[in-house]
Parts: sequence; C-alpha cells; structure tokens
Amino acid sequence: MISFARGVPAPECLAVEELADCARAALERDGRTILSYGPGGGYGPLREELAARHGVEPGRVLVTSGSLQGFVFLAEQLVKPGTRVLVEAPTYDRPLKILARLGADVVTVPMDDDGLILDELPEGEFAFLYTIPTFQNPSGRTMSLERRRRLAELAAERGLLVLEDDPYGLVRYEGEPLPSLFELSGGATAYCSSFSKTVAPGVRVGWFVLPAGLAAELEALATSTYISPPYLSQATVLEFLTRGSFEPNLERVNGLLRERRDAMLAALERAMPDDATWTRPDGGYFVWLDLPSGPPAAELLAKAEAAGVSFVKGSDFFPGGSGGERSLRLAFSFVSPKEIADGVALLAKFVGA
Amino acid sequence: MISFARGVPAPECLAVEELADCARAALERDGRTILSYGPGGGYGPLREELAARHGVEPGRVLVTSGSLQGFVFLAEQLVKPGTRVLVEAPTYDRPLKILARLGADVVTVPMDDDGLILDELPEGEFAFLYTIPTFQNPSGRTMSLERRRRLAELAAERGLLVLEDDPYGLVRYEGEPLPSLFELSGGATAYCSSFSKTVAPGVRVGWFVLPAGLAAELEALATSTYISPPYLSQATVLEFLTRGSFEPNLERVNGLLRERRDAMLAALERAMPDDATWTRPDGGYFVWLDLPSGPPAAELLAKAEAAGVSFVKGSDFFPGGSGGERSLRLAFSFVSPKEIADGVALLAKFVGA
Repeated sequence: MISFARGVPAPECLAVEELADCARAALERDGRTILSYGPGGGYGPLREELAARHGVEPGRVLVTSGSLQGFVFLAEQLVKPGTRVLVEAPTYDRPLKILARLGADVVTVPMDDDGLILDELPEGEFAFLYTIPTFQNPSGRTMSLERRRRLAELAAERGLLVLEDDPYGLVRYEGEPLPSLFELSGGATAYCSSFSKTVAPGVRVGWFVLPAGLAAELEALATSTYISPPYLSQATVLEFLTRGSFEPNLERVNGLLRERRDAMLAALERAMPDDATWTRPDGGYFVWLDLPSGPPAAELLAKAEAAGVSFVKGSDFFPGGSGGERSLRLAFSFVSPKEIADGVALLAKFVGA
Repeated sequence: MISFARGVPAPECLAVEELADCARAALERDGRTILSYGPGGGYGPLREELAARHGVEPGRVLVTSGSLQGFVFLAEQLVKPGTRVLVEAPTYDRPLKILARLGADVVTVPMDDDGLILDELPEGEFAFLYTIPTFQNPSGRTMSLERRRRLAELAAERGLLVLEDDPYGLVRYEGEPLPSLFELSGGATAYCSSFSKTVAPGVRVGWFVLPAGLAAELEALATSTYISPPYLSQATVLEFLTRGSFEPNLERVNGLLRERRDAMLAALERAMPDDATWTRPDGGYFVWLDLPSGPPAAELLAKAEAAGVSFVKGSDFFPGGSGGERSLRLAFSFVSPKEIADGVALLAKFVGA
C-alpha cells in the first residue's frame, strides 16, 4: 500500500540512536525525579525551557502526552453539550471527533488560500476558535500575515479565546517564517505545539501555552487524570534540545520531507486533469487536492485502495462530513519520492485524467 | 516535614541506573516502533507479555499511562450523571474524585478486617464495583480468600462488573499470596494493576485486563484522546522484565519497605493510647489508624503539620468526606525507619496518649 493517508514522518526521519543516548543520559542525570510522581503539568526543566522560549511563566505551560491530550483537557474544561466552538473548514479531524463526543455545537469558518476568511467569522459567543495557521492539516494552507494581525486584534476586541495549533511551524522547507498569533497578540491567545514532527511522534510530547487561570485549571484536570505525565519522554526531548541535536536533526528531516513535497507537486502537475487544483505548501505534511470534475472522493478512495493507494477523503475534515466531497488530503511525509510518483500516477487513472 | 501522606516509594527504591540502561536498550532494539504512532492500547510487545501472564488475548489488555488514566477511560465509558457505582468505604480518593466529576451516584459498602462486607452489598443495578482487595489504599486491609470466592460468584450471579485494582499485590513482605478475583472468576472480572509500586511510579505504566468488548471501547477512547501512549516508558519496563531485573529489584524494594512497615507498627505500639487500633498489613504502603477518643483527624492534622508531620485524614477516603472523622491513613513507604519512629512519637503527643 502506498499511503498518502498517514500524516507521519518516514521512518528514516527518526533519530533513533541519538534519542536512545538522550534517554539514558536524562535518566542518569535526573533519574529520581523522572521516575517519581511530580507536577501534572509536565517535567519541570522542560516546562521551564518552553516557558523561556515563549517568554512566559512556567505555570502558563502545560506539557502533555502529545498535544491532542491537551486539546481534550481544554475541551473538557470549556465545552458542555451545546457549547459553541469555531473551527476552520476543513480542519484536523481528531479535534472534531473530540468536540462531537462532548456535544459541542461546532460552527465552521471557510478558508481560502490565505487561510481562515475573517469576514466570515460569525458574531456571537464561542468558547474558543481552533485554528492551525501554518501548513494546516489537512489543507497545507498558511494564514497570511495580514490576516494573522487582524485575527489577533479581533480576538482581543471580541474577547474570543483563540487556540493556535502549530505543530508544523518549524517544518518549513522554504520562505520566511511568519509570526505566530501568539506573538502578534503579545501572548494573549492560546498556543499549542508538539515535538511529534520535529523530534518523533512516538515521544508524545506536546505543550500548551495558556492564560494563567486556564493553565491552572487544565493542570488540575491533568493531575486528576494521570497524576503526572511520563517524564521519561519529556526529559529525553529536553536532553535532545539542550545538547544541540534538535536543529541539525530538524534540518535533516526537513530535507527529507522537502524532496517528498517536491515529488508530490511534480507528480500532480504531470498527472492531474486541467481543472484539478491543489495547494503548494512551503512546509508541513499535506497537499489538498480538489477535483471538481472527478468522481466523489469516497468512490475514488475505494478504487484507489483496491489498487494499493490510500488517502483521506476531504469530507473527513468537515463536521458531520458535510463538505470536501470532491477533495483529497494527500500526505507526502511517510512515503518515498518514488512511491509518491507511482501513487499519484495510479490515482490519476481513477480520476479520469 | 516527615510525610506519612505520600503513598510513594522512598527514592532509594528506584533502580535508576538499571532503568537508564533499559531505556537505551529498548530504543536500540525497537526504536522505530517506539518513536512512531501505533495502537492506542499500548506498546505491542508489553501488551503481549501481560496478556500471556494473565492468560488472555492481547486485545483484552490496555496499557495506559498509569492505571488511573485507565480508570478515567472506564468511568467515561460507563458513567453518566446519576449512574450508580459501588465502592468500598474507605477507598482510594482519586477514583472518588473522578466519579464525582462525572456525576456518578457513588454507593459505599463497608469493610471490616476481612475486606468488603459482602452481606452489606446493596441490591440493584450498578455500572461496576471498584475494589482494592489486597493491601488496600487507604486501609491496608486484605480481602479474605472466602470473601474473594463469594464475590467472584456474586459478580457472576448478578452480572455485576467488578473492577479489581491490584497495585500492591506483589508488594508483600510476608504470608502467602491470595488468588485474585480475576483468577477466581476465571478471567470474567476486570483487573488492573501498575508498575508504579514494583518498578517506579514515574514510568507511568498501568494496565487493564477487561472483557473483550469493553477493552475495544476503551482502546478507541484512548486512541481518540492521545493517539498512542508514550511507548518509551512501556518498552523500558518490558526490557526490565525480560532481562530478569524485575524479581531481584522487587525483593530489594520489599525489603526496604518491610523495615518501614515494621518501624511503623513498633512505633504505634509504643506511642498510641490503649483504645487506638490500627491495621497490620503483610504488605503495601499503608496503615489505617483509628483513634476513637482522640481529637478529630482534621484537628490533629493541623497540629501535626505545624509540628512537621503530615498524613491524610480518613474522611478524604469516603465519598463526600462523610466517614473516617477519627481515622488516619499513615503511609510508611516514603520516609525512613528513623523518621517513622520520630513522626509517630510526635503524632502521639497531639493524640493525648
């Protein structure tokens, strides 16, 4: 199976030997703390390091087992059945499922190539707005600087809590980084990210930077859920950061991913029909493909899977599956450039190009 | 502060060097799996090892970040506001808080020195019964073999799901181990345990053995909460098991804890008034002290803390705090034998012995 479904790094991206050494070194340096219970908000030294990077007090940082776990805490704290929450359409499917489980009334805001369309932001009260402004999952789109500025202002004016999910910000292959909403708001919005895409998904180390009161509430929820998170992974990541392995590894990984992105864009150019359109991200894992005259994505998926190619159909990224019926999310992160070329060529056959 | 409050092992119980070596070895052997996403139910090889030990299919085993996280999943799956749940009185306080948060109607069953009093088990429908039959937290009591047999039978007759929490079963200093409810029921009841007391709390590796359908539901909940758990800790524990470090380490740790238990019982004998009674556990971390003519435990706690000794007052282990007003949970696991002697002598002053 050639998987354009798996939004995960290729195995060769994982710095196994180096992380093995970091795990041992972390335990040798601070084993008694790592192997004991402690604060529910995360391994202290990593929390301090992240707080320093964001210019906030450590108490505003919550380190969780992957950032999805933190999203669950945030949603459990803020959402009751019927609570209204704003999301981009399309958006990452896992938060949609969590919000649906909690009974949220999920309201979508459409996007264009510059990200969330702010003029379409509905009036009224919302518990929060969930956005992935950089190399969005699933669309690969990045919110423009102008819209970031306006969204940061709007959030302050309306008293709207904005949660900026930023796992891909450092997974950039070209172009200049944009300031985060968190930075543009002077640290007023909520921010989360993770080391899944920059170190390894399996370490399960994500973090949230939150207004102080909300951070304390979520830490209490974390403590009452698992007492303390597994510090070993968190301490291993910190060791990886402090010994200077992070930057060279990121450069190496981004090089591997860039080849894949290039292979994906070239293959789409070669194979897709004239009316097909797709995003051309400067980073991240995903390309979003629209096939206005192609078969419905669900139909295409069934044929493609039978022939050995998988992807995720666009409708999975809309609440209730209403939207994206002729769209595909293609992840280029996991498969090789050769597989990408072959997989897209195969897909194109079923598109009828 | 001499802490009889902390139900955690003393720092010298932690096999830091050995676990550092295990972490490295685990990553070197299986790094690509450990560092990637995978099944939400836990690290495959550890799941298989635990399943083999319990004589069940791996799909019935869920490995979570500490067993409390698994309890949260179980409760989220089975409890809605108003759902009736049975617990021992007293019982571990953290599950009580989780059940309260979910709006459960918690019904208590009293205990005596042979554990849960089965004749007091109320009629009617309950989502489950939560019990800690061996070296119970907080009482240190162990359910007798006869009651275990009867409870296993009753569970089958009534179709009552029994969740047996067994973190202390292997932390035995003397006497013969009793069969678990899980074993006596032929694997029909639910079982959970953890490596917090036998390897290290900070590894956060707990596990559940469940009926197959419930296991699948809880695994889906785990996946939708954190995708996959941090495999690094789980693989480190497996390495510790398979290289044969577990048994000798457990023997060493139990030796350290036995000294503390002995020191606690001797100090109570020396210092407490004639009408005071306390449990004499063959293992675990806790002694339960009843002071029928002493001051209320809340009052005693304030005085003791001001003088440098802490414990947890009995009422914390009853739903709504109603019960145990003149009882204390004394953890002997964390402090040294000398501190235990000093701390109990100091406590006794305020008891008025």
